[in-house]
Amino acid sequence: MNLPTVSAPVRCVVVVIAMEEEARPFIEKHGLKKHQEPGPFVSGSPMVAYSGQINSCTDDNQSHLRVHLVWNGRDQKYKVNNVATTAAAVATYASIAAFHPDLVVSAGTAGGFGELGGNIGDVYASTKCVYHNRRIPEGETGDLEEYGFGHYRSPPISALASAIGIKQGVVSTSDSLECTASDLQLMRSEGAVVKEMEAAACAWVCQSLRVPFIALKSITDIVDAGRPTEKEFYANLHSASSALQGKLTHMLQLLGQQPLSRWATGTVSSSLVATALEGRSTLSGEASLSGKTKLHQLPSPIGAAPSSRRGLRLELALLALSLACNGLALLRRRGR
Amino acid sequence: MNLPTVSAPVRCVVVVIAMEEEARPFIEKHGLKKHQEPGPFVSGSPMVAYSGQINSCTDDNQSHLRVHLVWNGRDQKYKVNNVATTAAAVATYASIAAFHPDLVVSAGTAGGFGELGGNIGDVYASTKCVYHNRRIPEGETGDLEEYGFGHYRSPPISALASAIGIKQGVVSTSDSLECTASDLQLMRSEGAVVKEMEAAACAWVCQSLRVPFIALKSITDIVDAGRPTEKEFYANLHSASSALQGKLTHMLQLLGQQPLSRWATGTVSSSLVATALEGRSTLSGEASLSGKTKLHQLPSPIGAAPSSRRGLRLELALLALSLACNGLALLRRRGR
Repeated sequence: MNLPTVSAPVRCVVVVIAMEEEARPFIEKHGLKKHQEPGPFVSGSPMVAYSGQINSCTDDNQSHLRVHLVWNGRDQKYKVNNVATTAAAVATYASIAAFHPDLVVSAGTAGGFGELGGNIGDVYASTKCVYHNRRIPEGETGDLEEYGFGHYRSPPISALASAIGIKQGVVSTSDSLECTASDLQLMRSEGAVVKEMEAAACAWVCQSLRVPFIALKSITDIVDAGRPTEKEFYANLHSASSALQGKLTHMLQLLGQQPLSRWATGTVSSSLVATALEGRSTLSGEASLSGKTKLHQLPSPIGAAPSSRRGLRLELALLALSLACNGLALLRRRGR
Repeated sequence: MNLPTVSAPVRCVVVVIAMEEEARPFIEKHGLKKHQEPGPFVSGSPMVAYSGQINSCTDDNQSHLRVHLVWNGRDQKYKVNNVATTAAAVATYASIAAFHPDLVVSAGTAGGFGELGGNIGDVYASTKCVYHNRRIPEGETGDLEEYGFGHYRSPPISALASAIGIKQGVVSTSDSLECTASDLQLMRSEGAVVKEMEAAACAWVCQSLRVPFIALKSITDIVDAGRPTEKEFYANLHSASSALQGKLTHMLQLLGQQPLSRWATGTVSSSLVATALEGRSTLSGEASLSGKTKLHQLPSPIGAAPSSRRGLRLELALLALSLACNGLALLRRRGR
């Protein structure tokens, strides 16, 4: 099998998003421009594309990354967001045809699992994506059964995940908001920590077309908490979409013009680096489409040399600060 | 909602098929030519396109219909046929982008229901397509829930179904070969007579892009017979694919250059006309890509005038013959 290239610089990213509510904060944050009719897709397509650029912050030479956000649009008949796998697969194929990206990100909201450490507001990047509703038993070789589950691997990016303060794990997809006992059993057997409705479909398209793929999912509800998914989902949709925007922005700022392979491994605790970087982002301002506010002296990825001595000093100071904050938070939590 | 146009002549048809075994008989029958690299899709796409033409037989002026069969291809990793909705949706979008068809047909094999009159070897055309594994409960309006089920309508073609001797009904789609109690309940509540794995995904793409869509499904197994689906499916795959080829060929021969609206209604018993036409087809030879064997004086669709007096006499004789055969069959069945 030909694997996607992860050693080339990431210059162009497609972000596929199912719901307008999930897409809006990112579009507004970066002032992405909507493509007018005729857009980049087959005439009549429901997908809506927005394009712009994000300034990168991985080295002293400020460069930018071209970003195309593709929202799946609304269903003609029911006027609802085109959620679930069919629309996601079509949007991914159409976006790759239109924009030839170096990376596709399926971004959105999702369910987490309390017993696996998931909390509302967490953001996860996929290590791999599976389906939990494609049951295709086949006795002879089992190949069709495994094809059903999918096992679409994302490139290793643990240093990147550490740097932006997100978790990583197996993302599991079905076309339903709720789940049956059989769905839960399949998710458990595949080690899923995130349950959502699009990622595996995008991932299959990307695997087929050899484009690197990452799912980035923000938790709106806890699947195993015994609360109604629908209510919890809508209650947290806004805040989770906002958290998603923050992490997605941060990820793309760090990725700009760097190969994905640079971020393959990391040894520093994710929460520390994340806190450090979040603090830095607030201190130094955030990248924008206009280029008027820029991130300066952001730390290099884990394992790479900081760009300057001043950067190193600032990084160490922030790490110490975050260590202290984390210690306090831990003490407070234990005290409850 | 803008509905697909059914009043324009059908000059170009895309047939989307998931399994090579299902596609092979039709490709061979019509000598369709495989597109070589670079094909009509995004580089690296798994789909494989075959093109050719089928001679129509709806009037005295022999004309032809351009046909593109698109097989979903094989999965890179597991080397199995790209079954299920993700690949079907992508193939449908990519085929519409490449070929601009007047009609898309999702052709393949499927499960039937014994208690609803389904038998192995039956071929069904969709009246509408639904999903039985997209459960998206939503309290406020219910729109998202109905979006989940889909309700993608095919144009009315009861005269065409009668003419080629196929059944019609609701086709229900999921990504699984087997089904859960919840799946069965949903199928029952939507009146499904066919259970398969691709049609609704193709139908959504076609509805979005306003291209008329028909699912044509040949029954390999009986869902409610209590036998293992997998074994029955593989045992009947070859014969069902062969039956599918026959009915698909017949359908396209009749459709050639005629608007779909011509076939909207029919008043004559389907089994009679089907038998008549099947008899005629055997008597007169079958259309082929080479154009060397041609169908002459085939009856016009129900409600239209036969093309000649000789045609009318032959049609009446065949109807009488089929009436006699059907009467005998009925007596035999009652006698059991």
